[in-house]
Amino acid sequence: MKKTKKKINAAILIIGNEVLSGRTQDANVSFLSNWLNDNCGITVEEVRIIQDIEKKIILNVLDLSKKFNYVFTTGGIGPTHDDITSLSISRAFKARYEFNKEAYQILEKYYGKINFNDGRKKMAKMPNGSSLIYNPSSAAPGFKIKNIFCLPGVPSILQSMVGNLKIYLKNGLTTINKNFNLETVESYIAFDLEKLQNKFLKTVNIGSYPFFRLGKVGVSIVLSSQSKIQLNACEKKFIKMVKNKKIKLFKNN
Amino acid sequence: MKKTKKKINAAILIIGNEVLSGRTQDANVSFLSNWLNDNCGITVEEVRIIQDIEKKIILNVLDLSKKFNYVFTTGGIGPTHDDITSLSISRAFKARYEFNKEAYQILEKYYGKINFNDGRKKMAKMPNGSSLIYNPSSAAPGFKIKNIFCLPGVPSILQSMVGNLKIYLKNGLTTINKNFNLETVESYIAFDLEKLQNKFLKTVNIGSYPFFRLGKVGVSIVLSSQSKIQLNACEKKFIKMVKNKKIKLFKNN
Repeated sequence: MKKTKKKINAAILIIGNEVLSGRTQDANVSFLSNWLNDNCGITVEEVRIIQDIEKKIILNVLDLSKKFNYVFTTGGIGPTHDDITSLSISRAFKARYEFNKEAYQILEKYYGKINFNDGRKKMAKMPNGSSLIYNPSSAAPGFKIKNIFCLPGVPSILQSMVGNLKIYLKNGLTTINKNFNLETVESYIAFDLEKLQNKFLKTVNIGSYPFFRLGKVGVSIVLSSQSKIQLNACEKKFIKMVKNKKIKLFKNN
Repeated sequence: MKKTKKKINAAILIIGNEVLSGRTQDANVSFLSNWLNDNCGITVEEVRIIQDIEKKIILNVLDLSKKFNYVFTTGGIGPTHDDITSLSISRAFKARYEFNKEAYQILEKYYGKINFNDGRKKMAKMPNGSSLIYNPSSAAPGFKIKNIFCLPGVPSILQSMVGNLKIYLKNGLTTINKNFNLETVESYIAFDLEKLQNKFLKTVNIGSYPFFRLGKVGVSIVLSSQSKIQLNACEKKFIKMVKNKKIKLFKNN
């Protein structure tokens, strides 16, 4: 018997001063959020970026773990002194911070016995009871404990690993989006858009985002729904509104 | 008498489904964080990205308002139905949500009486007791209430407004950063880096971030401090370590 899919939500916790300080532009939120929605029907509902301070990691992990079905952390699982995600999460869940046998073997094989130094060994340490998230690009695995999934911060490595998350994740309802870029300003459509939103209050979310492109102002309208039927019905009424108000769409919509 | 500058911290609260869903890549965190540090000596210590849902805005604004000296929100102050930041913050602080006289006049002048429709008028509504943050590019002002500063989400508009924040902000200690891109891997330097960090435990923060560039692996080391003297002392020892370990710097360091 086919089970009815439910709404499943998630949070992303980015651990690292480099993103917070503005030196590094995060690329993981956009990738993870899209990947989780498109492949697993999981909706990211909150993102936090925090400093790599043990107390803050513990507080945020525990808080988000309670509030969301899944939590994905990025960063802080490398070999250097500022990589304290694994240790902090062990303490958050009062689990022993210890060598994971399988992770140890994977890394020893990857680096060779002679080159397997302390820094590299550190990457095999994680909370007792963790399951591994395999890493096809640079060997060092991520891990899952409770509903927390710990991934590295380097985008290319993270992206190579997400396929290995799937075995742990329940599939929920995918959100379908339709995007329209209008040659107009928000205040010209605000009234009609609100009327439309009120008609589809519980089924379609209508977002309105102003932008500038090649010196022109525009508004990007996003219709989002977990029901194709409701989305299509809303789109129909939206297109009618656009025509009635004589608004053009941008060419490369 | 010159007052001694203190550490001043801040949080950024990004309100909007478009960033959360991964459709839009945020550009405001990096800009704001750099600007606040370089111009005001204010350190951003946490970022949250949340949905535009009134209850969530209220909870997060109140929580961050207590934890940080300043909170900067972006997004949700435009004319459409999904722009609910001003209303939500009014409710968070139990302030009346009403027309700000000056904002109303600014917008009426900008659009002209005839074109000043309801959507545009909405942008003059904010919590009673707010102070305006003037907007030189598209007129609609942001506002300050308590220690919360509400800015728009469109990066170019936000960037044109930050100069007008300065009158409200106390200056703190600027963090100075030095960045070195090494042709090495983290595990080769982890031990020595930790030793160095322990020597400057309370004065310099040493961050280590692996990266890939043109097929080569590298590590970006960031030394951060609010004391120039300590930073220079740490840098000296760091350079010595790099030489001893025969590590090259990337050419375009």
